[in-house]
Amino acid sequence: MDKTHGEIPTLGYQKVLAQLRRKKREHLKLLQRLVAQPSISAQNEGVRDCAELLASIMEELGVPAQIYETEGQPVVFGEIGEGDLTVLFYGHYDVQPPEPLEAWTTPPFSPTVRNGRLYGRGTGDNKGQLLTHLLAVHSYLEVLGKLPIKIKFIFEGEEESGSPYLADFVAEHQELLSADLAYTSDGPLHESGAPAIYYGVRGMLGLEMSLETASWDNHSGNKGGVIPNAAWELVRILFSMKDEQGRVLVDGFYDRVREPSEIDLELIANLEYHPWQIAKNFGVKKINLEKEEFYRRLTLEPTMTINGLTSGYQGQGTKTIIPAKASAKMDCRLVADQDPEEVFSAIKHHIEKMNPEVEVIQQGYMHPSRTDPGLPVSQKILKAAQAATGKKPVALPATGGSLPDYVWTKILGVPSIIVPYANADEANHAPNENLSLECFYQGIEISARAIYELSKK
Amino acid sequence: MDKTHGEIPTLGYQKVLAQLRRKKREHLKLLQRLVAQPSISAQNEGVRDCAELLASIMEELGVPAQIYETEGQPVVFGEIGEGDLTVLFYGHYDVQPPEPLEAWTTPPFSPTVRNGRLYGRGTGDNKGQLLTHLLAVHSYLEVLGKLPIKIKFIFEGEEESGSPYLADFVAEHQELLSADLAYTSDGPLHESGAPAIYYGVRGMLGLEMSLETASWDNHSGNKGGVIPNAAWELVRILFSMKDEQGRVLVDGFYDRVREPSEIDLELIANLEYHPWQIAKNFGVKKINLEKEEFYRRLTLEPTMTINGLTSGYQGQGTKTIIPAKASAKMDCRLVADQDPEEVFSAIKHHIEKMNPEVEVIQQGYMHPSRTDPGLPVSQKILKAAQAATGKKPVALPATGGSLPDYVWTKILGVPSIIVPYANADEANHAPNENLSLECFYQGIEISARAIYELSKK
Repeated sequence: MDKTHGEIPTLGYQKVLAQLRRKKREHLKLLQRLVAQPSISAQNEGVRDCAELLASIMEELGVPAQIYETEGQPVVFGEIGEGDLTVLFYGHYDVQPPEPLEAWTTPPFSPTVRNGRLYGRGTGDNKGQLLTHLLAVHSYLEVLGKLPIKIKFIFEGEEESGSPYLADFVAEHQELLSADLAYTSDGPLHESGAPAIYYGVRGMLGLEMSLETASWDNHSGNKGGVIPNAAWELVRILFSMKDEQGRVLVDGFYDRVREPSEIDLELIANLEYHPWQIAKNFGVKKINLEKEEFYRRLTLEPTMTINGLTSGYQGQGTKTIIPAKASAKMDCRLVADQDPEEVFSAIKHHIEKMNPEVEVIQQGYMHPSRTDPGLPVSQKILKAAQAATGKKPVALPATGGSLPDYVWTKILGVPSIIVPYANADEANHAPNENLSLECFYQGIEISARAIYELSKK
Repeated sequence: MDKTHGEIPTLGYQKVLAQLRRKKREHLKLLQRLVAQPSISAQNEGVRDCAELLASIMEELGVPAQIYETEGQPVVFGEIGEGDLTVLFYGHYDVQPPEPLEAWTTPPFSPTVRNGRLYGRGTGDNKGQLLTHLLAVHSYLEVLGKLPIKIKFIFEGEEESGSPYLADFVAEHQELLSADLAYTSDGPLHESGAPAIYYGVRGMLGLEMSLETASWDNHSGNKGGVIPNAAWELVRILFSMKDEQGRVLVDGFYDRVREPSEIDLELIANLEYHPWQIAKNFGVKKINLEKEEFYRRLTLEPTMTINGLTSGYQGQGTKTIIPAKASAKMDCRLVADQDPEEVFSAIKHHIEKMNPEVEVIQQGYMHPSRTDPGLPVSQKILKAAQAATGKKPVALPATGGSLPDYVWTKILGVPSIIVPYANADEANHAPNENLSLECFYQGIEISARAIYELSKK
C-alpha cells in the first residue's frame, strides 16, 4: 500500500464514494454483528465483550486498535493515517438497558431489518453512528490505500451511565488523543431530514432546595395564622429568583455569559423558522418569540428550570394541613463561559440570603462547551454535510441540551463539532430503537466527505 | 313527680351533685353500653342501631326521645322540662372508622377501663360527651323530680362524615329546635387541664388550583428557555396572593372581617400565654408573636394556607424536565362575617386575572360562627365551668378550627357555645381512643352546673 498522505484529488474521493455504495450489504452486516453483542453499561452486561468485538472489527477494517482500562468500562482507541491535520472521532459502544423487553417487536439484540430500518438496541445510539466513521476510513484504505489526514478514534463504554471516567481519561491521555478537531455523531438529524450541526452544547447544573418549618404538619385550623408554612416560604424564595420576564435574579448568574458573535447570529439568521410547527412539536399553544430570540434563548442563554415541586398533601380531595416541609428540584442549563461551581455558589448564596435555614444540595453538573463556527474546520464540516446530503444543514451555535463536549474543548483544548446521523424517530432509550438504513449509509458518506474536506488546504 | 319549674335553690343543686357522685359506676356502665354499639357513619356500620339504642337510653333516663329521618343517617331528638329558658344540647352518636384495628390494645367496640380511662372508639368523640348532658338531666329528675329549664337534645349520626344534612334538618325543624342557647361538648379541654370555652368557630373554604402549560413534560435542555414552565407560573400566581407579612392580597378578602370587640380582647387578655410551650406543642422553633397578636390571628383573623404543592418530578435524584402541570391545594379559615362563596369568588377572580387559563375548583366550605361572649348566657356558662371544676376556664372568642356551629347561630339564630369535656390526649380519630373517667364525671358536673346557672334569673 502507498502510505503517502495529503490532499486527494476529487476523482479519488469519487472512487471512495462509489465503493461505499457498492458495499452497503457488507456494512449493514457489520452493524448487525456489533448490535448483536449486548453492552449495557447500567447493568454491566456484555460491555467488555463488546469492547473486544469492536477492537477486532476495527482491526478487520484496517484500523490498529487498543483497549485502555479505566476505573470503569474500557476505552477502545484506534489511530491511522498521517497528515497535517488530525481528527478525533468520538462515540460510545455501550447501550441503554432494553427493558421493557415485551415492548420490542423483535428482540433488542437480534438486529432485524424491517421497512428500511435496522431495529435493535444501540442501532442509532450509538453503534451505527460510530461505525460510519470506521467504514468511511476503511473505504479510503481499500480504494486509495491511504488516508489524506490522520484519524483517531475514541469509543467509550459508559456514556449511557453518565461518562463518569471520560474526563479523567482525556486528562490523563492528552498526547494520545491530541487532535485538531473532535467529531461526534450522536443523536438525530434535524426533523426536516436536513443534517444538523452543533458547534457546542449548553452545560447543566442540577440542584435541590428543601426546607422544614416545623417538626410535623400542623392542623390548618387549630394552628393556622401563627406558624410558618413551608410551601409559602418555598414560593417566596422561588419567586425571588426570577423576574416576570423570566430573567434570573441571582446576583452573578449572568456574569460570564458570552455575547453571541456575529457568526453565531448569522447561523441563526440562516435557519428556517416555523414557530407553529415548533409549538406543535413542543406540545404548547404558541411560541411567542421571533426567530433570533427563540434560538438565542435555546442555545446561547442559560436557563433556570423548576423540575419539580413537592409539599404537603397531594392525594385525592383535601387535607387541611400546614405543610412542615417543601422542596424544589431544579436544573440550570449553562452557556459559555459560565462555570457550574460558580453558578451553584451564586444560587446557594441567594437562597441562603432569603432564608439561611434552607438546605441547598448540588446534584451534578456538566460544563458548557463552544467551538467557533467561524474556524476553517467548522466551515469544512458544514460544507461536507451539505455536499454529502445535498441539503442545507441546520447549523446551530449549540444544542439546547447537554453532552460531555467540554472534555474536548476544555480538557483536550480542541474544537469540537457534533454531527448527528440518526433518523429523528430513532427511538433511542426506548423499545424498538432503530436506525434507518438510509441514514446509516448517508452517515458513512458524510464521514467520508468530512475526511475529504478536512484534507483540503 | 312535682313538675313545677323555675329557679332551684342551691341546696337542690347540691343534692343533684351528691347523686351524680354516688352514681359514677352506673354512669360508666351506660357509657360502655353506648360505646359497645358500633356506629361508623363513613362505613354505614351500625349507625341506625346506635340511634335506636341512644333513643332507648334517653327514655330510660327519663327523656322522651324521637328518631327523625333525614336523607342520611337519623337524627335523635329529645325534649324535657319547662322554663323560661331553653337550652339545646348538640352531639353526635356516630364515630370515626376504627382502622387500623391491629393498633388497638383492646378492641374498639369492647370498651375497657385501664388506668382511669375508658378505651374504645367514640368514648371521647362524642358518645361520652353527649351522655354527660343526659346523665346530668337524669340526676335532676331523680333527685328533684323536675328540671329548672327546658332542655332539648339533638344528636346526629354523621358528624364524622361532614354533617351533610344537618343544616337542612335544622332549617326544616326550626320550631322543634327553637332554643335560647345551643351547647356543644366536643373536643378536648385545654391542655393545662382547665376547661375550655369557645364562643365561635372559624369557617373553612377549600380550593384547588391547577394549570397546564403544555401537553407533556418537555426536556429542560432541548426545550429550555422558550416555553412556559407550569411550576414557575404556579409560583408567580401564589406569590401574588400574599405579601411578605402574610397578609392576603386578594381584593375583597378582608372586606367583611369583623373587628374584635372589647370583650373579645378582654377574653384574650385574660389568657395565660407561654409561647415557648406553644412552640413545643406546634413543633416549631419559636412563636414570634405577642399574646394578643397570637390569639387574634388564631381565632379572629382569616388565613390562606397552602395545604400541598404538586408539580413535575418528585422522585429520587433528578429528572430534567419542564413540568407541564402544576397544582396547589389550599384552604382558608374564615371569620365572621366573611361569606365562603364571596371569598371563593374573590380568590377565583384574582387567580383568573393573573392567568385566565388556571382552573380553580372549590372543595367545600363551612361558614364561620360567632356568639357574643358578653351575653348573659355566655357569662353563665363561663361561671358554670369555673364553679364545677374549680379552675379558671380558657375562654376564647372562637376556635381556630371549624365546626358546623353556624347551623345554630345562622340558621337557627341562637347563641352557641362550645364547651369540650374530653382529656387533651383522647386520641379521637386514632387507635386507642379514650376518655379519662375523671373528665367524664367532671363533664356531667359541668352540664349539671350549667343547667343550674342557666336557671338563675
